[in-house]
Amino acid sequence: MRMTLDEVEALALARLRAAGASDMQAGPVARSIRAAERDGVRSHGLMYLPVYADHLTCGKVDGQARPALSQPRAGAVVVDAAHGFAHPAIDAGLPALIAAARTCGIAALTLRRSYNCGILGHHAEAIAGAGLIGLCFTHAPASIAPPGGRVPVIGTNPLALALPDGAGGARFVLDQSASVVAKSEVMLRARRGEAIPEGWALDDQGRPTTDPEAALKGSMLPAGGAKGFGAGLLVEVLASALSGAVASRDASPFSGPAGGPPGTGQCFIAIDPAAFAPGFAERIAALAGAIEGQPGARLPGSRRIAARARIEAEGTLIDDDLARRLGLATGS
Amino acid sequence: MRMTLDEVEALALARLRAAGASDMQAGPVARSIRAAERDGVRSHGLMYLPVYADHLTCGKVDGQARPALSQPRAGAVVVDAAHGFAHPAIDAGLPALIAAARTCGIAALTLRRSYNCGILGHHAEAIAGAGLIGLCFTHAPASIAPPGGRVPVIGTNPLALALPDGAGGARFVLDQSASVVAKSEVMLRARRGEAIPEGWALDDQGRPTTDPEAALKGSMLPAGGAKGFGAGLLVEVLASALSGAVASRDASPFSGPAGGPPGTGQCFIAIDPAAFAPGFAERIAALAGAIEGQPGARLPGSRRIAARARIEAEGTLIDDDLARRLGLATGS
Repeated sequence: MRMTLDEVEALALARLRAAGASDMQAGPVARSIRAAERDGVRSHGLMYLPVYADHLTCGKVDGQARPALSQPRAGAVVVDAAHGFAHPAIDAGLPALIAAARTCGIAALTLRRSYNCGILGHHAEAIAGAGLIGLCFTHAPASIAPPGGRVPVIGTNPLALALPDGAGGARFVLDQSASVVAKSEVMLRARRGEAIPEGWALDDQGRPTTDPEAALKGSMLPAGGAKGFGAGLLVEVLASALSGAVASRDASPFSGPAGGPPGTGQCFIAIDPAAFAPGFAERIAALAGAIEGQPGARLPGSRRIAARARIEAEGTLIDDDLARRLGLATGS
Repeated sequence: MRMTLDEVEALALARLRAAGASDMQAGPVARSIRAAERDGVRSHGLMYLPVYADHLTCGKVDGQARPALSQPRAGAVVVDAAHGFAHPAIDAGLPALIAAARTCGIAALTLRRSYNCGILGHHAEAIAGAGLIGLCFTHAPASIAPPGGRVPVIGTNPLALALPDGAGGARFVLDQSASVVAKSEVMLRARRGEAIPEGWALDDQGRPTTDPEAALKGSMLPAGGAKGFGAGLLVEVLASALSGAVASRDASPFSGPAGGPPGTGQCFIAIDPAAFAPGFAERIAALAGAIEGQPGARLPGSRRIAARARIEAEGTLIDDDLARRLGLATGS
């Protein structure tokens, strides 16, 4: 079946409210599900809605939480998400982050007692939409072992970068996890009963595996070996240690009802390019041209942008399995 | 032959002065050569001294340059390195960066009309030594093509992270290039006439090669494929586009006399963990323990730290080829 994005958001909002979320908690999450479907990132779209609802029901997320903002220094914005969803806490912090970056040239927002923030690149885009460079970090329950070791210490810990396009939008939307693939890709394969390619993950004995269930019990392989682990460690330091969040290795899973609130964190850095040197937009346009001008090469994020235009117009396709899980009539 | 680190620094200082560098330019570079030898990073030690001297002689580096500092916003420090060496410009900017980070919670220093800054991790360490998180980015003449393309657009563009150890030193010193290996490793193999492993580089037709000379004419492979390119692109945006430096694809080589000053740039971000949440040092200690406690795993930078203790005590070994290139009596 096909749904318009308005229908996606309305469905998400209704289900989150029904599971106990306040309007302040449900609204930003419903919008994030709409944005994920719009960009063709199914793993963070309606597929995640039952998890969000379950987490409200079991108490992993406090549907009545009210994020609390403080600004200890001119460039330091801190939000306690109070074990609610990440999205309303981010919404609470972004205006102060943006104002601080304009004043100081650079500023950082950290969030603690937070949760899975969905598609990280969308938060970087929100910063870029304000004319600033957005550089975002978020961590996740541990799934990557250090090179040479076997026990996961960091999550797939993505980082995202988005640059202002000079017209209130974003370009160069880089969004990449520290692992060869995002863990959500393995979860998607597990749900579908499909094998994963070799080189994505190890089982819990440290052996290569193509079984997504074994991979979820084992560890994800870092992209580029030690360098991928290094990138994930950088994210762990900023999103978890700096923010005062729970460490990835102590966080409860982002799926399933066990373990109480994950209590994970985020760190978002905003930079005003005008504070450092004139001509940033021109340099980025030239850099983009040097990449896009090569046959076969493309800018990071261009696939999502292409999906966006198409799905905005056509709506999003919900497969029968997901429709059943959401309790929707499939017309068959 | 073996040299003490004092001898290394004195030799470097004398040669740089003889090639036309002022004390202000020569001193910080000589200290950086000492620090590279101390950490066992030969590619940036005395091996690079003839290049530095040649670049003074041919005008790629202005030995009389005086870096100019400005602070356009409370958290934005800008240094024009004036086509001198990077190290004196960094020395000029670091005190203002550190003071701004303490005031604002986070601050950034950008450098333009700069040069190869040597071992990036050492600059991150200097920030960590002031009790701050150091996050450093530098770019280099283009050597990595975008995935799907064949023309290099970004350099091997390393990033570095160092964390304060609470006692005026640094730990967790991550220092990694965007490529599978640093280009200096390929240059070292080329100098020695040794082959490089497959998977490091492509020739100028985009074919895998084990010939270091062909690799230097071709492109370096990014670590982890598209994700390594993404990491290098992030560095390009901050070290080059934000700073107002020459783009990697327009920069003259860091070796050889051709092309005039490279005019490359750096971006160093300093973060005061105390501005965001209490307990940072304890969280980092626990994270370090979770890695070091696994047999076979180690913290980033631990190899350099181990070399440091040994070479501080024993001095550094100069092989005959390097001794000849430096015009030193080898005793044979």
